[in-house]
Amino acid sequence: MKNLVLASSGSVHGSEYLEYLIPTIDKLYKDIEEILFIPYAQPSGISYDDYTDAVQEALNTLGIEVKGIHEYKNAKEAIKNAKGIFVGGGNTFLLVSKLYEFGLWEVLKEAIEQGTPYLGTSAGTNITGLTMNTTNDMPIVLPPSFRTLGIVPFNFNAHFIPADVNSTHKGETRETRIKEFQSLISIPVIGIKEGSWLRVKGEDVFLRGGEPAFWFENKEAKLIEANTNLKT
Amino acid sequence: MKNLVLASSGSVHGSEYLEYLIPTIDKLYKDIEEILFIPYAQPSGISYDDYTDAVQEALNTLGIEVKGIHEYKNAKEAIKNAKGIFVGGGNTFLLVSKLYEFGLWEVLKEAIEQGTPYLGTSAGTNITGLTMNTTNDMPIVLPPSFRTLGIVPFNFNAHFIPADVNSTHKGETRETRIKEFQSLISIPVIGIKEGSWLRVKGEDVFLRGGEPAFWFENKEAKLIEANTNLKT
Repeated sequence: MKNLVLASSGSVHGSEYLEYLIPTIDKLYKDIEEILFIPYAQPSGISYDDYTDAVQEALNTLGIEVKGIHEYKNAKEAIKNAKGIFVGGGNTFLLVSKLYEFGLWEVLKEAIEQGTPYLGTSAGTNITGLTMNTTNDMPIVLPPSFRTLGIVPFNFNAHFIPADVNSTHKGETRETRIKEFQSLISIPVIGIKEGSWLRVKGEDVFLRGGEPAFWFENKEAKLIEANTNLKT
Repeated sequence: MKNLVLASSGSVHGSEYLEYLIPTIDKLYKDIEEILFIPYAQPSGISYDDYTDAVQEALNTLGIEVKGIHEYKNAKEAIKNAKGIFVGGGNTFLLVSKLYEFGLWEVLKEAIEQGTPYLGTSAGTNITGLTMNTTNDMPIVLPPSFRTLGIVPFNFNAHFIPADVNSTHKGETRETRIKEFQSLISIPVIGIKEGSWLRVKGEDVFLRGGEPAFWFENKEAKLIEANTNLKT
């Protein structure tokens, strides 16, 4: 049974990295003593070691050991054998490029579908959608494809912020960008705010975190109330 | 002699499309009665015809006729024969993909280097840099390459906004994103605010519009005062 927590962001304003998610992570990784961390998204160009250390520090309170995938000789085996997986945020283009470079999509999808508990934040959430076309990240590298895991039958826009009606800025709003995408490809998109996450258990997909999300489909945007089940 | 106006945006708050640039466009297209417009970036998924009409309306005051490149059977010939060229904003991924699809990079570069007056706004400005890696746009399509015209020896970040120090949002700032890019490739990047543009005349590259810009190189960001010549 699929068992995922797909968070908009790793942090929220005013608290430490992953702090707001600790009770949720505790339940996701119940009885798991060691997880596999995939640091490829490298926020701010941080090293894999430093990123893994930051995650270890955040999860110390749960007594969970964090091992970076770069510490293994065989990354595929590491994913296959993982008791729990965490893919952290950063740059989605970088993360997706590395997963293609190392050929890890299939083994990652299999592990998730067989029930390995999976935590994603930001870029790590984006890659569970059908494609990465609706990321906010800067295209710092060119991946061979934008196709991603397709664990859920839609795309994500993480760190979602509704348009500020008082803004004087002329750059596109998130909604405009998402509609530009959907004028080309009719994939639904969920915009989830920082502090919100999706809790996937088998076919159930609950919106958690207490805030509404935004659902874009057929050129319309609608509000989804917290705790809605997105199961179709 | 190269002769370009490379604007951060087509509009600024509180005025009509292209209005703030009209005196500058008037000088750029001096004595030109008809220009070629390239609408491939399709802001908000607008049609090529509608986009071309909007540009025509904006340039009516200058008595300039605007013809969309999609109205020609042979796009390469249209670029070669153009007296002036305008590439409008929208989605940089879409614009770059179409220029690859139609094989127009070389002929466009040649025209610009031979002195055809060129106006770019937003995406149309981005493509005159070395690569499109530092666009803010959403990756709604996958181009075969991020390499662009290289008319100037740096990259652009259009619609630049400095970080808001009071923000509670945890998504990356522009500066963080640009530094993530430069941790991979050492191409300098200019962040130009809405209402600013670069005036390229031969080897001279003046910052116009009255506002400072931001220059990112060697992991440092520095302010460039208005009217600075970026010629190196």
